[in-house]
Amino acid sequence: MATHKLLLLPGDGIGPEVMGEVKRLIDWLNSAGIAKFETDTGLVGGSAYDAHKVSISEGDMAKAMAADAIIFGAVGGPKWDAVPYEVRPEAGLLRLRKDLGLFANLRPAVCYPALADASSLKREAIEGLDIVIVRELTGGVYFGEPKTITDLGNGQKRAIDTQVYDTYEIERIARVAFDLAKKRKNKVTSMEKRNVMKSGVLWNEVVTQVHKREYPDVTLEHQLADSGGMMLVKWPKQFDVIVTDNLFGDMLSDIAAMLTGSLGMLPSASLGEVDVKSKKRKALYEPVHGSAPDIAGKGLANPIAMISSFGMALRYSFDMGALADKVDAAIAAVLASGLRTADIKSEGTTAASTTQMGEAILKEL
Amino acid sequence: MATHKLLLLPGDGIGPEVMGEVKRLIDWLNSAGIAKFETDTGLVGGSAYDAHKVSISEGDMAKAMAADAIIFGAVGGPKWDAVPYEVRPEAGLLRLRKDLGLFANLRPAVCYPALADASSLKREAIEGLDIVIVRELTGGVYFGEPKTITDLGNGQKRAIDTQVYDTYEIERIARVAFDLAKKRKNKVTSMEKRNVMKSGVLWNEVVTQVHKREYPDVTLEHQLADSGGMMLVKWPKQFDVIVTDNLFGDMLSDIAAMLTGSLGMLPSASLGEVDVKSKKRKALYEPVHGSAPDIAGKGLANPIAMISSFGMALRYSFDMGALADKVDAAIAAVLASGLRTADIKSEGTTAASTTQMGEAILKEL
Ligand SMILES: CC(C)[C@H](C(=O)O)[C@@H](O)C(=O)O
Ligand SMILES: CC(C)[C@H](C(=O)O)[C@@H](O)C(=O)O
Repeated sequence: MATHKLLLLPGDGIGPEVMGEVKRLIDWLNSAGIAKFETDTGLVGGSAYDAHKVSISEGDMAKAMAADAIIFGAVGGPKWDAVPYEVRPEAGLLRLRKDLGLFANLRPAVCYPALADASSLKREAIEGLDIVIVRELTGGVYFGEPKTITDLGNGQKRAIDTQVYDTYEIERIARVAFDLAKKRKNKVTSMEKRNVMKSGVLWNEVVTQVHKREYPDVTLEHQLADSGGMMLVKWPKQFDVIVTDNLFGDMLSDIAAMLTGSLGMLPSASLGEVDVKSKKRKALYEPVHGSAPDIAGKGLANPIAMISSFGMALRYSFDMGALADKVDAAIAAVLASGLRTADIKSEGTTAASTTQMGEAILKEL
Repeated sequence: MATHKLLLLPGDGIGPEVMGEVKRLIDWLNSAGIAKFETDTGLVGGSAYDAHKVSISEGDMAKAMAADAIIFGAVGGPKWDAVPYEVRPEAGLLRLRKDLGLFANLRPAVCYPALADASSLKREAIEGLDIVIVRELTGGVYFGEPKTITDLGNGQKRAIDTQVYDTYEIERIARVAFDLAKKRKNKVTSMEKRNVMKSGVLWNEVVTQVHKREYPDVTLEHQLADSGGMMLVKWPKQFDVIVTDNLFGDMLSDIAAMLTGSLGMLPSASLGEVDVKSKKRKALYEPVHGSAPDIAGKGLANPIAMISSFGMALRYSFDMGALADKVDAAIAAVLASGLRTADIKSEGTTAASTTQMGEAILKEL
């Protein structure tokens, strides 16, 4: 059995708590002889700042580079609101994405039947929802230069951010979206603001070309990102795979996640390019939710998004799709049994702690 | 009685139809001696392109400059998808906003009681909703330079858009938001992405300063734009006034509009700075909905957003708040009576044409 090297980066807030439940799952997989994971742990975000005055140390970056997959918790919190911009908690995550070349961020928004009523949307609008947002993750306004604040004198400052996209960056994310759609409902919706942004014009042009050249059998639609956002709220089930840039993807994937009513449930995968020789790709898996400092340390956090992110690692990094399916089924079964963490609790269901939820899923497995 | 000069720019698609109902209202106000409006008409968007190969002619720009207020329909449609970028329909609207200095875009999202069930959100989430998005409209990534597509050779192109904000631009839009909040529930939520964008850092800093210096009695909250979008979907009633930049404002105001379930109902006002001498400000009023080319020319369009935009003109440009209240009340009464255009029709209500709806509102007045 091959040994897989995992780097666990729990981060801040509820990160360590939810990571604890993944750790429990990994230990069991190892001891039951189902898989062989070698785990190492590092610091990122505020916890790295507290220890080393950086958002991630060079040592942990080296570990990340060497790992087969990174399992990431969450970063940030009011405690670090005043730290210098360059070492703010988020910088560690952004550096991991950029330096590892994790350009493809897959964010499924799935509505668990047992939770359909937790959404602010009507049941009929989201029941059975199963879409994926494919977000470009290493380009656009997140990384473009110049990115500066200049003092103009007279009490005036000027802030500049730059959105930059090259053809190849759009091509490769489009391919990820089309490949994914082929395994699903065969439909891709590309979103940009070509009526206002030159990057939107190029995005639209390149996605159209990739489609014509390489994926003529997949249905491709284009929507302006603002009306796309509206359509997501109005009738999300019209989508299958949505492909969009880094900033629109940030907004749209959060909104899609909220539609399902279960932010604490949703995983994500951030993938690099497949290496021609080793056939491997760098990958980082993280829940869509944040570090939730308000409930941290209380055993209230929902570990499902984190466990489900590990499930994506099994699927995308380790070719253990069958095991990933079992993890998903265990989650669904535990929910169907009525067990709920505080964030998804409704009348007539049992309130469980982070640990109880993790243990219940493991037992189901 | 003072004479007010209006420029009507119906634009494309359903623009001319819904503008017709505003024209009917203006004619009645004039003939009943309630007000004195002098109207002129111009071309913008695709219709200007068809006539003059521009998105708005210099002659119409001059009229716009001279008008006391501009009443704007909608622009765009697939017919003009292939026209050169510089003269695409949207360029006319963007030029009006920029050249007239219409930096403050007010977009109320109000849920009409009679329509609470038209939303994809649950009734309890949106019943009684009454918020305003204050969107910066002449800065940010819409207008920043460079804004280019460059051929890099090797089949590669590079697209660049630039987000630029200066202190004064953020100060003046913050003041609009705080002033508005003082007349409402006294709460402002500022949204940006300071964890990723330098413009977000400056935005946050300047809004905080304006608050401290000039509006300490208004409640101010800050949210990251992505989680702000989530909160809008989850529980929109937590907001009163939201202030945000041009691009986030585009996304968030469309989503807020969709929450109400009645995109065809929502107006907007775009305001310039108050001239120190004349005490006047340039202003443009337009519905939030687009040109809806699919239903254009069929008499199906809902004229309420357009009429309601004219109501905002009465309030913000002509100090006729009482009359504006009457227009709002007439709209609510007609809806309560069960009259509906196709977009908001539900069982047990009567389907009305654009004209029937306009006439019913006028009769109610
Ligand atoms: C933490 C932050 C930098 C990050 C982002 O904006 O990408 C987060 O919102 C996300 O969506 O993963
Ligand atoms: C038509 C388009 C240029 C415009 C915008 O993006 O500002 C529209 O979406 C709006 O919100 O008014």
